[in-house]
Amino acid sequence: MLMKVVILAAGKGTRMRSSLPKVLQPLAGKTLLQHVVDTAKELNAEQILTVVGHQSHLVEEAMADQGVDFVAQTEQLGTGHAVQQAIPEIADNDTVLVLYGDVPLTAKNTLEDLLSSVSDEHPLALLTINLDNPTGYGRIVRDQHLAVQAIVEQKDANPEQLQITEVNTGILAAKGAQLKSWLSQLESNNAQGEFYLTDIIAMSVADGFAVQTTQPESEIEVLGVNDKCQLQALERQYQLQLADELMVQGATIIDASRLDIRGTVEVASDVQIDVNVVLENTVKLGENVSIGANCVLKNVEVAANSVIHPFSHLEDCVVGKNVNIGPYARLRPGTELADEVRIGNFVETKKAKIGKGSKVNHLSYVGDTLMGEGCNIGAGSITCNYDGVNKHQTVIGNKVFVGSDSQLVAPVEIGDGATIGAGSTITKDSPAGELTLSRSKQVTLKGWQKPVKK
Amino acid sequence: MLMKVVILAAGKGTRMRSSLPKVLQPLAGKTLLQHVVDTAKELNAEQILTVVGHQSHLVEEAMADQGVDFVAQTEQLGTGHAVQQAIPEIADNDTVLVLYGDVPLTAKNTLEDLLSSVSDEHPLALLTINLDNPTGYGRIVRDQHLAVQAIVEQKDANPEQLQITEVNTGILAAKGAQLKSWLSQLESNNAQGEFYLTDIIAMSVADGFAVQTTQPESEIEVLGVNDKCQLQALERQYQLQLADELMVQGATIIDASRLDIRGTVEVASDVQIDVNVVLENTVKLGENVSIGANCVLKNVEVAANSVIHPFSHLEDCVVGKNVNIGPYARLRPGTELADEVRIGNFVETKKAKIGKGSKVNHLSYVGDTLMGEGCNIGAGSITCNYDGVNKHQTVIGNKVFVGSDSQLVAPVEIGDGATIGAGSTITKDSPAGELTLSRSKQVTLKGWQKPVKK
Amino acid sequence: MLMKVVILAAGKGTRMRSSLPKVLQPLAGKTLLQHVVDTAKELNAEQILTVVGHQSHLVEEAMADQGVDFVAQTEQLGTGHAVQQAIPEIADNDTVLVLYGDVPLTAKNTLEDLLSSVSDEHPLALLTINLDNPTGYGRIVRDQHLAVQAIVEQKDANPEQLQITEVNTGILAAKGAQLKSWLSQLESNNAQGEFYLTDIIAMSVADGFAVQTTQPESEIEVLGVNDKCQLQALERQYQLQLADELMVQGATIIDASRLDIRGTVEVASDVQIDVNVVLENTVKLGENVSIGANCVLKNVEVAANSVIHPFSHLEDCVVGKNVNIGPYARLRPGTELADEVRIGNFVETKKAKIGKGSKVNHLSYVGDTLMGEGCNIGAGSITCNYDGVNKHQTVIGNKVFVGSDSQLVAPVEIGDGATIGAGSTITKDSPAGELTLSRSKQVTLKGWQKPVKK
Repeated sequence: MLMKVVILAAGKGTRMRSSLPKVLQPLAGKTLLQHVVDTAKELNAEQILTVVGHQSHLVEEAMADQGVDFVAQTEQLGTGHAVQQAIPEIADNDTVLVLYGDVPLTAKNTLEDLLSSVSDEHPLALLTINLDNPTGYGRIVRDQHLAVQAIVEQKDANPEQLQITEVNTGILAAKGAQLKSWLSQLESNNAQGEFYLTDIIAMSVADGFAVQTTQPESEIEVLGVNDKCQLQALERQYQLQLADELMVQGATIIDASRLDIRGTVEVASDVQIDVNVVLENTVKLGENVSIGANCVLKNVEVAANSVIHPFSHLEDCVVGKNVNIGPYARLRPGTELADEVRIGNFVETKKAKIGKGSKVNHLSYVGDTLMGEGCNIGAGSITCNYDGVNKHQTVIGNKVFVGSDSQLVAPVEIGDGATIGAGSTITKDSPAGELTLSRSKQVTLKGWQKPVKK
Repeated sequence: MLMKVVILAAGKGTRMRSSLPKVLQPLAGKTLLQHVVDTAKELNAEQILTVVGHQSHLVEEAMADQGVDFVAQTEQLGTGHAVQQAIPEIADNDTVLVLYGDVPLTAKNTLEDLLSSVSDEHPLALLTINLDNPTGYGRIVRDQHLAVQAIVEQKDANPEQLQITEVNTGILAAKGAQLKSWLSQLESNNAQGEFYLTDIIAMSVADGFAVQTTQPESEIEVLGVNDKCQLQALERQYQLQLADELMVQGATIIDASRLDIRGTVEVASDVQIDVNVVLENTVKLGENVSIGANCVLKNVEVAANSVIHPFSHLEDCVVGKNVNIGPYARLRPGTELADEVRIGNFVETKKAKIGKGSKVNHLSYVGDTLMGEGCNIGAGSITCNYDGVNKHQTVIGNKVFVGSDSQLVAPVEIGDGATIGAGSTITKDSPAGELTLSRSKQVTLKGWQKPVKK
Repeated sequence: MLMKVVILAAGKGTRMRSSLPKVLQPLAGKTLLQHVVDTAKELNAEQILTVVGHQSHLVEEAMADQGVDFVAQTEQLGTGHAVQQAIPEIADNDTVLVLYGDVPLTAKNTLEDLLSSVSDEHPLALLTINLDNPTGYGRIVRDQHLAVQAIVEQKDANPEQLQITEVNTGILAAKGAQLKSWLSQLESNNAQGEFYLTDIIAMSVADGFAVQTTQPESEIEVLGVNDKCQLQALERQYQLQLADELMVQGATIIDASRLDIRGTVEVASDVQIDVNVVLENTVKLGENVSIGANCVLKNVEVAANSVIHPFSHLEDCVVGKNVNIGPYARLRPGTELADEVRIGNFVETKKAKIGKGSKVNHLSYVGDTLMGEGCNIGAGSITCNYDGVNKHQTVIGNKVFVGSDSQLVAPVEIGDGATIGAGSTITKDSPAGELTLSRSKQVTLKGWQKPVKK
């Protein structure tokens, strides 16, 4: 038996008012569809069949490297019609899970429950949920033995049925043989002229197969997104859930409603995250790491006891232990800081490997640089790594002292223990242990007249 | 028939605990009174009569250029007394709309509805609202034909009347003739010794004129502000409404509760606004523009596909297409960036016109500058535009390369294709196509002794 | 009669998932236990007895200078057992107040009420609270005269008792003599094998002493913290309360849910605080001070009419009147700004005393500096205060003009009215009134070839 997932992703999403198809809208830094595909992969689906229609080329392009198969739905004739397009890929003995490209947050274990309730005896299982306010949803009508009889849509429901709070989520799993049979019987003789997937529930009942139902833990798992307001609301709900998960692991989060996680975050014990932090891609925070207010970290690994002060922006970099960063530090891709490094305010680093205990405290640019241990780089120092066409490297030894406002014009090498005088333009290698500088004599021009107001 | 608006703005607002009168407190970057005046103007009021009392000079000063007329209420004898002060300006055939300087958010169409229900046959119309919790408000008592009979205040209401959820908002419209007549009959024989405007409802009923009522769409439209807590609460409600409006237009907003709009924002399609952004005055964002977390934009126009990275601060500037700004870019007034410009971290610009594709990537100050296309301005470069008394201009041609840490001492001109060596102080014009620099020879002082710890 | 406080602080707090004991977790910048100790001090407790157990050395270390006494509870045998450990310090005539190290926010006046209801006639008083949802709490069972009869735990309550919404908070006050007697009678013959402090309520009733009860104003006062989710939730509730207090004093706060106060804030009239501000330690804001979005202030005093623009970070500094700071200003400890000073973007100051009206507008570092009045420090200026081992001072007179990108190599003194030419490295004192500079001649190298792409 193989498990295959069919994801409906052909809709236009007009209410999104976007040039992007709905399923490519981002939630927590990832498209809606990617969330669903990732879940399908976690379920070890044998095949992921994505039904595409509107702007299918954009969807196919976005998911090109995801190992999913695309099925074209050229006309939008309803959910039943959409699933029909995938039927050629389905064997009788397959189990088919139907998901929706705009319902991004269904949990893996919820779907495992659903799938485990499908069998030859029970070829159809439906995910339902009880809502405090079921208005607008198809109600699950059960008989006196609590067996599912039918789904009754809002507009067709009688007053008694309107009281039912258990509703259809649209998510279902079915055996291939029966699914094919039922889909082939669907009719579009309704007001919309569409083929409704939910009609197969009644067919299953008519065929004498009791419909199995399971339920998700949380309503967030079955919420769909139709416009930017719903997208924003789901983003916030999801973010609160992600923050909760970190807090359960022991992270101290000062305001869960002001933390944005767009990827995967790992926290060791006693991590503290202050207000208004954004974490993107893969972020790993070691024991007792503290992230200050308003920081943005993207694809960053920070080792134990390091402190990142407010307003810092780190991307694609690795930070050692007991490192002190910011405020206003901008670490660009390729920055690797050894233990006990200090990067201060208004400092930018890029492709910079900085040795243990070295300090770049103020107003500096360190790019394409290999720096040793125990260096002190003065305020306003700049590695001139670009000559207008090529980039060059600066190599700085151990225990180097670079005076303020110096320019190291790469390619250039500063020897171990060298001192560079303040305000120097260093264009040639500077020997170890010596003072090197380029400096004009200080003169006072007697009798110079100050400018006057024009 | 002329429509005149009377705005009551004479109150002290003691609970605001401010040296400013209440109606001058800011909501979403604009005074409460300005919100009301703007609405009156949108309604094309013939005359806007602002009744002022406490600190009237401050109110009159703040609204001096607004084309409103001021009416003094020297004693605070109630709402009826306040409107009476404006009567000399009212003709019998005028329609008078009474608004309140501390009720800032009544919608234009709500008031149009109200005004349209006033006529010679129905000279009085009242804005009412149904509240879940009407406690404290005057209840609208209706007869069996649903005709308004009276307004009964909380303290005077019997148990049955306390159940009424329709309440008086205080906002009303009336024909001048009747309004004058009713106001002249008001009495102050109540506990407060005040003349209450709402007493005219009973007079209208007594005169045989059925009081018309209309209702606003949202409660926010009739909320008044009496203290800083209410001000803050209304600010947040209003901001959520403004964010909703942008989302309905298609903007992707990551957190609606962390967006502050203080003015007018126009968004083209596929605009993305990250968390904690503040938009002030007039902000226009082109198609696919992305505003990063924590940015502040004030009076800014950004063309399509431009990206503004986190922590950027833009004021009074124009940004072209495909421009890349920040993080930590500070664009001050008079900055104009052509297409494909790049402004990087810790860069300040002011009165700077920067040509297509030019880059100022790091730690620079570019002020009073005209820069051509395709330039590269190195890290730490500074245009020295100020000599202590006067400002001077720097002119940079096309395809100029300025080495790091150079100072361009204005007035100065750098020719097309010129290169400036790193660390130069450029005080004279630099010719096109050539390398110009000012540099001391690099020397190493053998035998120099490092400082020792004192 | 002496009042002594016993604080139970021995618990492990496993669910915190921290290497710190629970009572040392921070809330609003202060440990949970410190909140309780501070309240005990405000009540003028004669002695504060802190019962410690798990990781007692960490708790004792953290509170070492707090003037509290520690009592060891080596085994964790329940709340009654914990209080028993403090008994040797209690005299018969003492009044004992029992507080909890993980219930941080009980108000002083709530506890004064509780204490004032204890007397020889009524030796036991209990703090109770009515909860909308009392599930899980011990219910206060009263007789027909409303006298407390007993506390019935959730699991032991009958259906009628489960309806009771008045619950036990655990906080109580008792006379020493009776408390000793009751504690000595406690038994641990319950499922947990623990000695429960609450059992003394029944003993008091049995002894014929009517148990007095008082209630707090707000539920927040009796909320305990058991995990990071509860800690975060309490932090937000507390922050809203702190913001409310400032608004009641007249501060304009743009978003109360985006203000973090971790210490003591004093505001004069007409203070405005924009979104996402963090205030730590002691912050005093004078009349009409405006704090921009995203600022962090720690131990700062700002005088009237000063404006701090967004993204500024101030620590341990004093700011005069009419000062203009930021955006992106970083004022480090020891900064003292006189009136009318201007500190602009990407400027760092440290141990800097800056005179009236002086300006440091762009991209500068001013450290270990004494600056006079009316100076203008150009963009990119740096005081080179560190020679690698020692720090030195820069002294700048009045009305000094420092050209851009100059380095003042300390120790150095710039005389009154001196001008420093742009790009100079100043290593020797510069005379008053004169132009001093160090500069190489500007040259153009004819025929220089631009680098080519490799």
